Amino acid sequence: MYASIPAIAAVAAALFVQGTSAVAANPLPKPVDITWGTSGSFSVKSLSYDGPAHPVVQDGYNRATKKIWDLKWSPAATEAPPRSFEPFPTPTAKSRKAKRTTRHYGNLNSNSTLTKVKVTVADLKAPLQHEADESYTLDIGEGSEIIVITAQTIYGALHAFTTLKQIVINDGTGTLIVEQPVSIKDKPLYPVRGIMIDSGRNYLSVQKIKEQIDGMELSKLNFLHWHMVDSQSWGVEMNSYPDMTLDAYSDRETYSHECIKDIIAYAGARGIRVIPEIDMPGHASAGWKQIDTEMMSCIDSWWSNDVWPLHTAVEPNPGQLDILNNKTYEVTGKVYKEIAEIFPDNWFHIGGDELHMNCYNFSSLIATYFESGKTMGDLYQYWVDKAIPNFRAQANKTFIMWDDVVLSPDAAASGVVPKDIVIQAWNNGPENIFNLTRDGYRVIVSSSDFMYLDCGFGGWVGNDQRYVVQVNPNKTDGSPNFNYGAGGGSWCAPYKTWQRIYAYDFTLDLSAEQKALVQGAIAPLWSEQVDDTVISSKLWPRAAALAELLWSGNKDAAGNLRTTELTQRLLNFREYLVANGVMASPLMPKYCLQHPHECDLNLDQEALWVKPTPAA
Amino acid sequence: MYASIPAIAAVAAALFVQGTSAVAANPLPKPVDITWGTSGSFSVKSLSYDGPAHPVVQDGYNRATKKIWDLKWSPAATEAPPRSFEPFPTPTAKSRKAKRTTRHYGNLNSNSTLTKVKVTVADLKAPLQHEADESYTLDIGEGSEIIVITAQTIYGALHAFTTLKQIVINDGTGTLIVEQPVSIKDKPLYPVRGIMIDSGRNYLSVQKIKEQIDGMELSKLNFLHWHMVDSQSWGVEMNSYPDMTLDAYSDRETYSHECIKDIIAYAGARGIRVIPEIDMPGHASAGWKQIDTEMMSCIDSWWSNDVWPLHTAVEPNPGQLDILNNKTYEVTGKVYKEIAEIFPDNWFHIGGDELHMNCYNFSSLIATYFESGKTMGDLYQYWVDKAIPNFRAQANKTFIMWDDVVLSPDAAASGVVPKDIVIQAWNNGPENIFNLTRDGYRVIVSSSDFMYLDCGFGGWVGNDQRYVVQVNPNKTDGSPNFNYGAGGGSWCAPYKTWQRIYAYDFTLDLSAEQKALVQGAIAPLWSEQVDDTVISSKLWPRAAALAELLWSGNKDAAGNLRTTELTQRLLNFREYLVANGVMASPLMPKYCLQHPHECDLNLDQEALWVKPTPAA
Repeated sequence: MYASIPAIAAVAAALFVQGTSAVAANPLPKPVDITWGTSGSFSVKSLSYDGPAHPVVQDGYNRATKKIWDLKWSPAATEAPPRSFEPFPTPTAKSRKAKRTTRHYGNLNSNSTLTKVKVTVADLKAPLQHEADESYTLDIGEGSEIIVITAQTIYGALHAFTTLKQIVINDGTGTLIVEQPVSIKDKPLYPVRGIMIDSGRNYLSVQKIKEQIDGMELSKLNFLHWHMVDSQSWGVEMNSYPDMTLDAYSDRETYSHECIKDIIAYAGARGIRVIPEIDMPGHASAGWKQIDTEMMSCIDSWWSNDVWPLHTAVEPNPGQLDILNNKTYEVTGKVYKEIAEIFPDNWFHIGGDELHMNCYNFSSLIATYFESGKTMGDLYQYWVDKAIPNFRAQANKTFIMWDDVVLSPDAAASGVVPKDIVIQAWNNGPENIFNLTRDGYRVIVSSSDFMYLDCGFGGWVGNDQRYVVQVNPNKTDGSPNFNYGAGGGSWCAPYKTWQRIYAYDFTLDLSAEQKALVQGAIAPLWSEQVDDTVISSKLWPRAAALAELLWSGNKDAAGNLRTTELTQRLLNFREYLVANGVMASPLMPKYCLQHPHECDLNLDQEALWVKPTPAA
Repeated sequence: MYASIPAIAAVAAALFVQGTSAVAANPLPKPVDITWGTSGSFSVKSLSYDGPAHPVVQDGYNRATKKIWDLKWSPAATEAPPRSFEPFPTPTAKSRKAKRTTRHYGNLNSNSTLTKVKVTVADLKAPLQHEADESYTLDIGEGSEIIVITAQTIYGALHAFTTLKQIVINDGTGTLIVEQPVSIKDKPLYPVRGIMIDSGRNYLSVQKIKEQIDGMELSKLNFLHWHMVDSQSWGVEMNSYPDMTLDAYSDRETYSHECIKDIIAYAGARGIRVIPEIDMPGHASAGWKQIDTEMMSCIDSWWSNDVWPLHTAVEPNPGQLDILNNKTYEVTGKVYKEIAEIFPDNWFHIGGDELHMNCYNFSSLIATYFESGKTMGDLYQYWVDKAIPNFRAQANKTFIMWDDVVLSPDAAASGVVPKDIVIQAWNNGPENIFNLTRDGYRVIVSSSDFMYLDCGFGGWVGNDQRYVVQVNPNKTDGSPNFNYGAGGGSWCAPYKTWQRIYAYDFTLDLSAEQKALVQGAIAPLWSEQVDDTVISSKLWPRAAALAELLWSGNKDAAGNLRTTELTQRLLNFREYLVANGVMASPLMPKYCLQHPHECDLNLDQEALWVKPTPAA
């Protein structure tokens, strides 16, 4: 047993010599193709811009270069194999006094200086819409004075600037350098790479939303899914129905059209789409009930009834739009139209999750419908058949819906959900992705078992007797239970760590045709326990692990999971986020940031790889 | 089944009429004895101070009154029973348009005005030490102009000011009021009420530490346990061994004597003791190893060895002081002495947790000792017998140690751990508290199953293959496992919610003699995944639930658990913390704050009470 340890260390060291260059710069997401030279460093004293006179490109360039000089960023450590350790046991070993080492990167003997950034964009007019080309190249040749960037669109150019920010570093003495010649050819694996924020459960300030957009820009995410409202509050200013914001949490906690457009513009300047979600016909009470309580069901019911079969909602407060009330279509159509006109994106999220049959026990129309033999599936189909053409008539966009409409027990009964609706899969992990793509739907992956960033914080509803347990009831066998080792009230426990998110092979067992239908992924942060105080630390840096998964994948060239390689890159990136004002959580003691791989669980750097089965 | 719902609601309403007054002010922790009158409100336009010329009292008064005027605080809602709901099902019910109501508190018809705060302190010289008297009274009589405060010590007076801040509220129109005459007689159940911060795993800035002290002041916590260093870093400036801070994370991330004294003074002015912990002889590497590597064991070992029986530490990086090396006592004595002189408190925490036998496989002295038939228990006893008299000789303080020294498998073998050592119990919940008090030890409760605030965030070590699971292996029976429903790598999962913390009856089954030995409790926040970005949101408002548990308990006058009553008080208090600059997490959607008890799991407001067993 002991003898195997040095052997493992030797393997690990060998891997690193082959696989990793000695530069400290380690941009996240890892580019699809990045090759560092060996001829030495370039100093960067000032850079002139030689590129298109396009405001988005020029502003992006100015932001990037200003940040380079403002931060003079230096990574804490260069990715490296674990150091060697004394074998176990070695009572006569001589311990060493390892001290903090002064960071010193690069080698300026080469005397090269970069002076210019040359930017070429093939198509300056491509709109910020689904499948906009985001590819770019970035080259710094040996002895050159020029950083050469090419892109098909302005969005690719913005990504190139983001990469540039991460490869121009402080050498440790205050001099900005690029460590080696470099050649990057880069483009994302998926066109949808996003996070979901929820301003329905708790208000999120414009300033904090912009902070998330800053984090998205740095990690090359491009899709902000904004769950704007929910049963608890309606903060979106509406000209069509001004009374809806009577259900905002306060006059201050609202989003005017102007401020929404400000957020969209801020994101757009960073190549990030903003897609609104108005969740219908479930999760509906606040706002809607100010228009007409007749089209609402169960808004005055007790959500829980203290007995699960009598619940009217998955969480307080309850409320659903009455699918059989014609007023519902008049109102949802107008609301949709007004919001669709604010958002320039061609996509729009119309919700569709978690319809509760019990809620409709408070609708006489639906009670009669059910008495006639109809089911929840029939009712859901009724909604799809009536609401979607109604929305299309107002503004023809591509719709996103949660997977409940196709795959839940109460899914639309006739299976007639138009195939041009993009389905966001949050249930059942790879199984739902498989089934949806098999049935021809385009899919956005948001599997709760991997990507729900709100999981693991216990339950949030009050007056919950389940916490009143003084002694572990499973003390004898140690098996997990509510207060001991299990979820503690969080329905989707555990907390999804960056390693868990990154390890998700969400195209598992898919055919090539099915894979082509996967548009990407969105990590939701439901906000029952989130507001300005914690949104950044709950999103970051975990969303950056997702960003790399979606940009260049989680496997190395040999097809092995590269979580272990990501470690130092992500730890560095977390510090970079904080330096950029995005208040990301620390993932480990800073010791681990400063000492690559000393905080690994396994010294074996191949521990996560799929190993060939040994011959019997 | 349906019929029972209205009955429950009726019971709930009846309880509230008896048990709760209609005032919005709802100070946390709930005073032991608070009685509101009914004769009407007092306006508060300006207040003059009539009290002792003592700087701590005067500064405390000035801080409190300034905050009252700066914030003009108004609670979001008054505690009230849940509103009535339509019974399930009621398809013909008429829904109502509930809107945000304008807060309007108090009734100024009475025309009373408060003008003066009269403060009497019996003993102005009582030192801030264990068991200082913290009692106070606060009275505002019908028609009086005077707020009358009495206290035995200045610390009691400070608590009175904290209460005063929470009962002078904005009536909703900008006028400050006290809603009714009030009489408060208050003192804490336990003398030790605290939180533990950890600046060894990650640095915490002085500013952020002060923010925690602000939260402690507001919630009447009085004990800041500062785990200053750990194996990962040593940030404490040492005159005796200046090289120790070579193992700080950076030159910036250190605590000079001056800045430590600044923190102690800031806390002291708020009646809060600061007790340092230097963890010995385990959890030791950084700092110590700069003095002499000969007295260190296993600092160059691989912590994990990829096989649990070969681990040398519970987490990276490993290191322990060599108990058999005489240099260890010379060095620990000097370090103890220097730090003991900085901290005025008579208590000092000397650690003592998690000694790993395997670590000593790297000490030739200890290897020989074990070969002679000695055990880890003998070795631990050797440490106790030699280190404690050595510390006492430097500065005679009361020591705190983690419970490992008395109750772990490797506990000091002869059982000769002096009874005047206060034992901090983190293992085995009520069982260890029972056993320690049975054996005559004074106990501080820090049970990890209830009070570890760092639990539930998954694992933090890297290169962990356990996350690489795509499909729930227990899909069939749904039983919790690593990535599905269980801890996700967090050894002490789940996350401890405020309801869990508050429900802890930590004196379960103790005799009166045993109960008298329980000094209070400390909620630790270990900081592997904590630094400035998240410390406040991980500590607050959960530490406030602990604060009430320790101040006035978790039961009402009838002996029933009052978690449900705490709900609105704690939701209000969380907003108050944020308003005071303590960045506490939101616990629920703001809807729940604005609608008392609508986010309860059970409508039955007695759901958490111990019910008589029905007759058979």
